[in-house]
Amino acid sequence: MTFDLPRRLTAEFLGTLLLVCTVVGSGIMAETLTEDVAVALLGNTIPTGAILIVLITILGPISGAHFNPAVTFAFLLRREISGTDAIAFMVAQVGGGILGTLIAHGMFALDLLQASTTIRTGGAQWFAEVVATFGLVGVILAGIRFKAEAVPMLVGLYITAAYWFTASTSFANPAVAISRAFTDTFSGIRPVDLPGFITAEFVGAAIAVAIFGWLLKQDTRKT
Amino acid sequence: MTFDLPRRLTAEFLGTLLLVCTVVGSGIMAETLTEDVAVALLGNTIPTGAILIVLITILGPISGAHFNPAVTFAFLLRREISGTDAIAFMVAQVGGGILGTLIAHGMFALDLLQASTTIRTGGAQWFAEVVATFGLVGVILAGIRFKAEAVPMLVGLYITAAYWFTASTSFANPAVAISRAFTDTFSGIRPVDLPGFITAEFVGAAIAVAIFGWLLKQDTRKT
Amino acid sequence: MTFDLPRRLTAEFLGTLLLVCTVVGSGIMAETLTEDVAVALLGNTIPTGAILIVLITILGPISGAHFNPAVTFAFLLRREISGTDAIAFMVAQVGGGILGTLIAHGMFALDLLQASTTIRTGGAQWFAEVVATFGLVGVILAGIRFKAEAVPMLVGLYITAAYWFTASTSFANPAVAISRAFTDTFSGIRPVDLPGFITAEFVGAAIAVAIFGWLLKQDTRKT
Amino acid sequence: MTFDLPRRLTAEFLGTLLLVCTVVGSGIMAETLTEDVAVALLGNTIPTGAILIVLITILGPISGAHFNPAVTFAFLLRREISGTDAIAFMVAQVGGGILGTLIAHGMFALDLLQASTTIRTGGAQWFAEVVATFGLVGVILAGIRFKAEAVPMLVGLYITAAYWFTASTSFANPAVAISRAFTDTFSGIRPVDLPGFITAEFVGAAIAVAIFGWLLKQDTRKT
Repeated sequence: MTFDLPRRLTAEFLGTLLLVCTVVGSGIMAETLTEDVAVALLGNTIPTGAILIVLITILGPISGAHFNPAVTFAFLLRREISGTDAIAFMVAQVGGGILGTLIAHGMFALDLLQASTTIRTGGAQWFAEVVATFGLVGVILAGIRFKAEAVPMLVGLYITAAYWFTASTSFANPAVAISRAFTDTFSGIRPVDLPGFITAEFVGAAIAVAIFGWLLKQDTRKT
Repeated sequence: MTFDLPRRLTAEFLGTLLLVCTVVGSGIMAETLTEDVAVALLGNTIPTGAILIVLITILGPISGAHFNPAVTFAFLLRREISGTDAIAFMVAQVGGGILGTLIAHGMFALDLLQASTTIRTGGAQWFAEVVATFGLVGVILAGIRFKAEAVPMLVGLYITAAYWFTASTSFANPAVAISRAFTDTFSGIRPVDLPGFITAEFVGAAIAVAIFGWLLKQDTRKT
Repeated sequence: MTFDLPRRLTAEFLGTLLLVCTVVGSGIMAETLTEDVAVALLGNTIPTGAILIVLITILGPISGAHFNPAVTFAFLLRREISGTDAIAFMVAQVGGGILGTLIAHGMFALDLLQASTTIRTGGAQWFAEVVATFGLVGVILAGIRFKAEAVPMLVGLYITAAYWFTASTSFANPAVAISRAFTDTFSGIRPVDLPGFITAEFVGAAIAVAIFGWLLKQDTRKT
Repeated sequence: MTFDLPRRLTAEFLGTLLLVCTVVGSGIMAETLTEDVAVALLGNTIPTGAILIVLITILGPISGAHFNPAVTFAFLLRREISGTDAIAFMVAQVGGGILGTLIAHGMFALDLLQASTTIRTGGAQWFAEVVATFGLVGVILAGIRFKAEAVPMLVGLYITAAYWFTASTSFANPAVAISRAFTDTFSGIRPVDLPGFITAEFVGAAIAVAIFGWLLKQDTRKT
């Protein structure tokens, strides 16, 4: 079941589009309906976890369902994707994500183009993004190794948890971070805060590749 | 495991009945118990997602578990159901759905026959219904192609997400929309707003058939 | 993997005990922590659905995991359990359930023996219990027929939905109803209201046996 | 697929670290965002249940994914782990858990080292911990016997329920209890209250080994 590059890129584009559309759209819905921020975060978390399970299940067989430059970067480090394919994937992810934000705005009758004013910066936030992305990439690598058919569920449940246990609500995804800079709603992040988040995310992914690479390596001494 | 037409229609009738009963009933329960609309939407979302997984699992083997004229329409476009069967399915879906609304009213001791006064109209809402139904039909088509046994879970989780990420709370179903015009409670929609919603839903289904038809088509050049 | 009667009865006793302990205990926790009744019902619903999946998975292989005289009654009508075993099951279920209420009280440092003062009566409530139990038994019968390994999940998700879409919050279980008469907390029911609920539950079970018996019967004319 | 002891201990260390990080971190997030304690408990429960499913799935194949001295103790009682391995496991669990608390503090920019002032003591709380750990160990033993691949989900769902049905919010884990003594936030427990909780947890585990040992033992008289 091999798919050609145009359709693999379409899968990355469409998947990231629907993922961002869910993150941004459910954030708008939630903050419109309640003044309790924890309830709003529940209304942001549950849809995000649910759509991740759906999108990875239905698009994974086409492109691998990265939807995330940090995940693509991890596979690049492991030499499981070529450099040119990796760049094409990342472009498709960012493009799809930004369009996802615009579509969410369109559905809620908001200005299509916005710039976030939500401050998300500082060492604690960056540390949180390192932890969040480390966990995400570790879950994916270990999941593929031990129970590949469960990866969609594992990623959905991991992000469900990480929205709450990381102080940054776990962006853990540079394409999603960039897309969220284009919305001045619940899930936004100031454009000027992007470099810190994106750097932290790639760092977390690299640490996961190193640690889980050792933890999961085939033990050749025993059967 | 083939079932005759009367039992297939009964499955569509009963499934749509229980689906609408859940949508309308949980909406009544939720708006009765809280003044926080986001909490009410959680109380409407979780039961709807749960019952979809249940109903598609137990009735899918009998009728395919469409419960939705837009889904039946998508299979008609793909020539996977005959025109006469499609019409019979849609009649059973609408009939079951309306009875589901009446049963919900009966359980909550409300007037059995009502007409909604909730305004749901305008370009943004219609756009949201196009997106919602596009996603639903895409999830079903790709799910059947790659992991048929997961379709009940995929549909339940997709609707869980779509209740929040679409501005219209994702009706995505003409039979459910018509049935919800008969209740003047949390989940209602004015009868006069039905044509816009229903048109948008069929449009979204047709777009999904086109795009996912291309994305999922067998690649004959490679193994 | 056959288990002797003492262990099957222990499984019914222990399973109903833990189920009631969860229903009553999570209700006490929820009403203690919030004044928003919909939030309390979420805090009652999610644990109940979760524990049902767990208990049916781990005890089903021993006893079938009825935990419910209406379910045992349905299997009796279908001649899939003997009359004497059915009576022994029901006694174990009621005994385990009542002990579950006492244990919940003990954990929350409440009086062990209480009588509920919560009024739950009238035609709409009884109708809701008929619908709730009809659905529960139908889900079990169809689940066993089409996807037996999914029955624990189906029952857990069905009850998750039914807590919200039925006006009675879906007791759907005479042993649980009796046990809930012994607590004057969130999930209680006045002892005097038990006969109406229990009658409605057995009626719903009988209707499900009739309708789903027809819907699911093997079609001998086709392969 | 056998892993050497250093990697098995790393799996126990890392798993308990991420588990405690989720319990403590989501508690901090929740109590920061809302004043409704039931909403906060939902925001603590859902991430904890989700991360348990993830961690047991991805680390179970390496170490068995105990993450819990009471679980290791149960396997020791059943002679399924050696005494020296059991002690090494427990040390790794406690060490990982404490580091998890520190990491959670770091992400939320709180003082890294804290001591809890939350009182959790008395007979009812201890009884709750006995029940909670009895149930947890019973679920694990029965799950392994009947459906080993479902154990991650069973444990995640059991704890989801037990957070609500036990008055103590179900610590059920001495390593997690010790780690939670190091945080003066939502999920904390006074250091002086630890002995009562830990004793109750080991007692609950021992009772489960006895009762479920009998309930699950192979019936040699029948096939």
